[in-house]
Amino acid sequence: MPIRIIIETTEDHRQGGSIMAKKIVGSKVPAYPMPVIIVGANVQEKANFLTVVWFSMVNFNPPVIAVVLNKGHYTNKGIQEHKTFSINIPSANQIEATDYCSIVSGFDHDKSKAFEIFHGELKNAPMITECPLTAECRVIQTLQYETHEIFFGEIANTYAEDEILTHGRPDIAKIKPIIYSMYNNYYWEIGKNLGRAMHMGKTFKPSS
Amino acid sequence: MPIRIIIETTEDHRQGGSIMAKKIVGSKVPAYPMPVIIVGANVQEKANFLTVVWFSMVNFNPPVIAVVLNKGHYTNKGIQEHKTFSINIPSANQIEATDYCSIVSGFDHDKSKAFEIFHGELKNAPMITECPLTAECRVIQTLQYETHEIFFGEIANTYAEDEILTHGRPDIAKIKPIIYSMYNNYYWEIGKNLGRAMHMGKTFKPSS
Repeated sequence: MPIRIIIETTEDHRQGGSIMAKKIVGSKVPAYPMPVIIVGANVQEKANFLTVVWFSMVNFNPPVIAVVLNKGHYTNKGIQEHKTFSINIPSANQIEATDYCSIVSGFDHDKSKAFEIFHGELKNAPMITECPLTAECRVIQTLQYETHEIFFGEIANTYAEDEILTHGRPDIAKIKPIIYSMYNNYYWEIGKNLGRAMHMGKTFKPSS
Repeated sequence: MPIRIIIETTEDHRQGGSIMAKKIVGSKVPAYPMPVIIVGANVQEKANFLTVVWFSMVNFNPPVIAVVLNKGHYTNKGIQEHKTFSINIPSANQIEATDYCSIVSGFDHDKSKAFEIFHGELKNAPMITECPLTAECRVIQTLQYETHEIFFGEIANTYAEDEILTHGRPDIAKIKPIIYSMYNNYYWEIGKNLGRAMHMGKTFKPSS
């Protein structure tokens, strides 16, 4: 995962006005904070788990989530085989097990014993009992890119621990999810609450 | 953005072993921490900006990023028109301007004056000078879902402020990005460093 980047040039890319230097950075992948999940799938009847940081919701109704996996992973075989996968959101207190699933490959390690497993309505979407929030997904589309493939999964059900709900809703402050940062290769907790979305901008006045 | 969810049932979904209750939550969209970016595009020659939390890298080489936009947004028109867009990663100190771009629509507000704008090599990918990390993208594919559409953009260049680089690499601790949480609708800072990725799991031992 660590990536070497080289600064190629320094130029002022501003259109007039005061000088503010912007550098073109060698790796074009922007460094944004990436939430960490564990994707589960059965490969030949055995559960396997992979830590994933490239994923996004892509549709609200029906709910569809896309997970982006390097083509070389073992987990992909199970998703292709059964057309199902699970999403598991680990807590910061599961950091060692979460990182383990990014270090060790299903090609040469049996990861089915790394967690307690439960199932919902889909037979081949093994979910992690220790994770406070999980979901089971049916593959509805796949897309191939050069290094990665994308599995689009319609979310059949989402499961939560009682302790992470506030007024019946999953509460991120209780989930205590893990964030990953590229380049320096660190995990982070969620920090200070900055305020309410769709409220804080009400007082913002553009300059003209 | 606030979403009402209803708990439908409580069951034990564990396969044997000790009891741990998992609840099916009514909204199937899992609550994970979503990084916040601002997507820029020119609509009829005028820059417009939209706050986005559904996006992901989808390929490493060449670098491709997918942004997922509700079909009703004004920004989509500009991306469709010019086949280019920008990615802008705001800092926590830009929270008001960032939230403003999620509250106010380009259909009835001119957001071109909300920021200082600079351009790289793509004419119609306006980037935000105040954002510490930005990228300009060429659309190479689009995908339609029911409520949302996905724009896949090959990243032409990524630009960084000098102050957010450490040994030439973008440093998330210096960027101070914003995280969004669904359901309770809050913004968060990055918090405590939990340790090194691909290291912490080396000592993890599965139970059998």
